[in-house]
Amino acid sequence: MSEFKLNNQQLVCVASFLAREGREAALLAALAELIPDTRREAGCIRYELNVSRDEPRRITFVEKFVDLAAFEAHCAKDAIQHYFHHIMPELVESHHVETYHQVIV
Amino acid sequence: MSEFKLNNQQLVCVASFLAREGREAALLAALAELIPDTRREAGCIRYELNVSRDEPRRITFVEKFVDLAAFEAHCAKDAIQHYFHHIMPELVESHHVETYHQVIV
Amino acid sequence: MSEFKLNNQQLVCVASFLAREGREAALLAALAELIPDTRREAGCIRYELNVSRDEPRRITFVEKFVDLAAFEAHCAKDAIQHYFHHIMPELVESHHVETYHQVIV
Amino acid sequence: MSEFKLNNQQLVCVASFLAREGREAALLAALAELIPDTRREAGCIRYELNVSRDEPRRITFVEKFVDLAAFEAHCAKDAIQHYFHHIMPELVESHHVETYHQVIV
Repeated sequence: MSEFKLNNQQLVCVASFLAREGREAALLAALAELIPDTRREAGCIRYELNVSRDEPRRITFVEKFVDLAAFEAHCAKDAIQHYFHHIMPELVESHHVETYHQVIV
Repeated sequence: MSEFKLNNQQLVCVASFLAREGREAALLAALAELIPDTRREAGCIRYELNVSRDEPRRITFVEKFVDLAAFEAHCAKDAIQHYFHHIMPELVESHHVETYHQVIV
Repeated sequence: MSEFKLNNQQLVCVASFLAREGREAALLAALAELIPDTRREAGCIRYELNVSRDEPRRITFVEKFVDLAAFEAHCAKDAIQHYFHHIMPELVESHHVETYHQVIV
Repeated sequence: MSEFKLNNQQLVCVASFLAREGREAALLAALAELIPDTRREAGCIRYELNVSRDEPRRITFVEKFVDLAAFEAHCAKDAIQHYFHHIMPELVESHHVETYHQVIV
């Protein structure tokens, strides 16, 4: 991978959640509620929520933060911890969170 | 989901590829090569390539286009068709492409 | 300019307003009020409001739309027309709105 | 302005240049040349070059950096200093660079 430069400072995250049957509206509401405060975080570059066109139960955040510390501070916030520990177990069938560095060409 | 508005015009895509063992550099090169021409498409809003921090074999595009027609025109391009039909089978172990509409809060 | 490609479809706008003395808070409030509905427009890609670090009376929108029609539809909206014809004359000393096409390299 | 939160960490810059008569192609080339390396800076969030639709001599960067330090590091780079001290005086009739903090609503 020597030809390509990664931006090793900024942190990209794709966090995808598959709602349990019939819980997609509740999940969407719970996730959308996280948006305003997250966008107020000084280290937040992008925090966009998306609903799959083929599978309405799949709801996915596309995120970018200025660095790992900003991302970790985001994850440690009460609202995010509450979501992962109390809301997600009830509303989500499966999930996948993956963090990335962007390739700069 | 009546409380939330989807942007049903713009098209978000997350296209994730897991390289075969030892082929991650070749896959990254093949995907990065698609970037300049795609960004020249009039309907391209975002076309960002990312490498997973935990699994270097996972390489993921985060994309946004002005509408479905622009996305389909992108997918129909020779370079993209060539990637999916000739390069991907050789370099990729598994892949997942999902399209979305963004939630506007 | 033959070496560089412009994205002649998407429309970039920088709209800058200098508040009258003492009216910067009122102007900021009036402009911020335009944000949520504009971001709900299907053709809106970016609609970001900024306050100058050197001159707090200078408040500037950085905007991008999918095409000229989307931008013109935005400008024709009641809230925008109301701002330009009724609020701006009262709160703004001078303004400059310029539209652009982005250079794709 | 107490109702609105500024992102006081991230730094937005709008840098606008009016080319001397007949020098717009040379100016566009000189500015476009700055893009690839700037986008490789770890602190660069956005570095987009735009040409005015009404006045082709007006060429404007829309920029965003993770913080002031990243912006200042960018400005201190040889290529940027060279542009401001050696290229701009020859090709530009007037210019305006303004830095901002984004309003988060």
